[in-house]
Amino acid sequence: MQFQVLQRAAGSAARLGELCTDHGAIRTPVFMPVGTRGTVKSLTPEDLYALGAEIVLANAYHLWLRPGAEVVKAQGGLHRFMHWERPLLTDSGGYQVFSLAPSSQVVDEGVTFQSHLDGSRHFLTPEKAIEVQEALGADIIMCLDECIPYPASDEYTREAAARTIRWAQRSQQANRRTDQALFPVVQGGTSPELRGLCADELVKLDFPGYAIGGLSVGEPREAMLAAAGAVIPRLPPQRPCYVMGVGAPEDLVDLVGLGADMFDCVLPTRSARTGQLFTRHGRIVIKNSRHQGEDAPIDEGCACYTCRHYSRAYLRHLFLNKELLAYRLNTIHNLWYFLELMREMRRAIAAETFGEFRREFYRQGEHDSG
Amino acid sequence: MQFQVLQRAAGSAARLGELCTDHGAIRTPVFMPVGTRGTVKSLTPEDLYALGAEIVLANAYHLWLRPGAEVVKAQGGLHRFMHWERPLLTDSGGYQVFSLAPSSQVVDEGVTFQSHLDGSRHFLTPEKAIEVQEALGADIIMCLDECIPYPASDEYTREAAARTIRWAQRSQQANRRTDQALFPVVQGGTSPELRGLCADELVKLDFPGYAIGGLSVGEPREAMLAAAGAVIPRLPPQRPCYVMGVGAPEDLVDLVGLGADMFDCVLPTRSARTGQLFTRHGRIVIKNSRHQGEDAPIDEGCACYTCRHYSRAYLRHLFLNKELLAYRLNTIHNLWYFLELMREMRRAIAAETFGEFRREFYRQGEHDSG
Repeated sequence: MQFQVLQRAAGSAARLGELCTDHGAIRTPVFMPVGTRGTVKSLTPEDLYALGAEIVLANAYHLWLRPGAEVVKAQGGLHRFMHWERPLLTDSGGYQVFSLAPSSQVVDEGVTFQSHLDGSRHFLTPEKAIEVQEALGADIIMCLDECIPYPASDEYTREAAARTIRWAQRSQQANRRTDQALFPVVQGGTSPELRGLCADELVKLDFPGYAIGGLSVGEPREAMLAAAGAVIPRLPPQRPCYVMGVGAPEDLVDLVGLGADMFDCVLPTRSARTGQLFTRHGRIVIKNSRHQGEDAPIDEGCACYTCRHYSRAYLRHLFLNKELLAYRLNTIHNLWYFLELMREMRRAIAAETFGEFRREFYRQGEHDSG
Repeated sequence: MQFQVLQRAAGSAARLGELCTDHGAIRTPVFMPVGTRGTVKSLTPEDLYALGAEIVLANAYHLWLRPGAEVVKAQGGLHRFMHWERPLLTDSGGYQVFSLAPSSQVVDEGVTFQSHLDGSRHFLTPEKAIEVQEALGADIIMCLDECIPYPASDEYTREAAARTIRWAQRSQQANRRTDQALFPVVQGGTSPELRGLCADELVKLDFPGYAIGGLSVGEPREAMLAAAGAVIPRLPPQRPCYVMGVGAPEDLVDLVGLGADMFDCVLPTRSARTGQLFTRHGRIVIKNSRHQGEDAPIDEGCACYTCRHYSRAYLRHLFLNKELLAYRLNTIHNLWYFLELMREMRRAIAAETFGEFRREFYRQGEHDSG
């Protein structure tokens, strides 16, 4: 994997980059649609190509438990299994173990947990997470980290960050494949100081890219931005910076302004399935009765497949009837909104108008100002 | 609507035809995917075009109750509402009222029933069914008929057939739009004699096409074929014959052999959603553990999108996890199987090899011989 910064914005830390992998190049800042189990819910790879998605994220935790990393490996790896020809990133399973699995217990060696599927007991170590992700074969893989809830005590936050650093070192040592880029995860809760220290330690280990984890777990938005803001300036400027699990459109705009390059979030896809649709003027709830008989598309200014061909009246009809097509058309629209937002930001950075772009974004929308 | 018989098979009543509507031409024999609520579950119109679907069926009953025929009409009609540019057929709601709605009660004037959605009471008459279907604007519309269960007494069967004839006459009188072709429905249960008499009476009324209803409701397969076989020879040979709600692949092959031109059935789409997939060697159940890790597609000889890109292992993984993509990929495959079967039959009739086709079909598959 190679990363190159192509241009820096004036007046902010926003930057344009290109990340090259064996499965093609990604332009950054980039939003990665989430394909938890090796599928972005309701969409084919061709749908995603049409949306302009350049990279997709899958979850090692889910694929390890079912169908099993060895099944995917025997099928030629995750790209071939899911018929996706562009770059892939897998997360380590750390976040899932701490957020999804019941009764997880951390020791220095690793974390024991019960499968959320059948209650079976498993032991995940940094080495195991690498083994699973090497079997899956994504282009970018992640070190196992310890995710803490919000709020958490200083002591616990410090301990988890220290363990995350030790696990990153072990992940690096366990990593055998040379065609995958391994990123560690900066932890440290909402303490800018601890975040900075964790970043410094991980930078010493010299990884090809760095992630910031444990954000958007309930903390105030200002604390999220402060934590990211404490980390990004301490990362090597020639390496990509990935903010995990974030976020809302306004979060993406502000984090790009702080210099972040990569993002993933279930927000557009999950909201689509609950009928919440993004527009540049705020979200709409498609089941609301005011959309009955409404001939307009979701967003008059949107060029997505859904907005080009379907009225709000039809989308409401599909959603009220729980028609499978509802989830797909909504997902197409929401992902287009997020991917188009990233394209607009890239164009603005290239045109040296990122500051104007950000002001206009907040002026148009009902967004929470950062 | 214009219908032309292009070629007749030797040794059977199978025939090749072309049905022209304002929304394009349909080659017959044709299978119509079912889009109950104005959507073929999980698919876009573009998916259906790629499958070679030439006409889709929608249900007046469902669209009348929700979102309402007037909502669809205000959106420019059903074609525009659902973004489908090819021919459409709507059924009258007769079958749904008798099979789906609780406590329906028939009198000569019409049928009262409760909505299966909210229990609200409605009264459906032949005139109302025409009004609703004229508002929806499909290319082919159906007369309201009285569907009876299997088994039914001779007296009830006779009474329902007589009422269906009277309703067809009223439907014809109520029909105002001249750009829609109205078909009546031959009833008569499993009595070949009554079926024949019902057909004769409807033919006297001179419709542009004729349907055979009330089949595949539990009667033995031989009785279904006998009933259709008693009707088809009595219909005007220059008019299309539509066998409603049938059926399995072997039914399609045998009914085409009897001279039927049009079919609809939920079998391919509904089976897809329960993970039963059609192949030329019989059906497979995708969740079965023998498909775990199986690299082969559903059917080696199949050229559908699903078989070109996905293994049984992946499809099983999606299905077990209730992933939305499972329903779509399965639906694509099953509809391709049905539509390809119709294409093969049309090619065989054109090549004057329909008899050989039918023998080979039964030789290859685990089908019930007719």
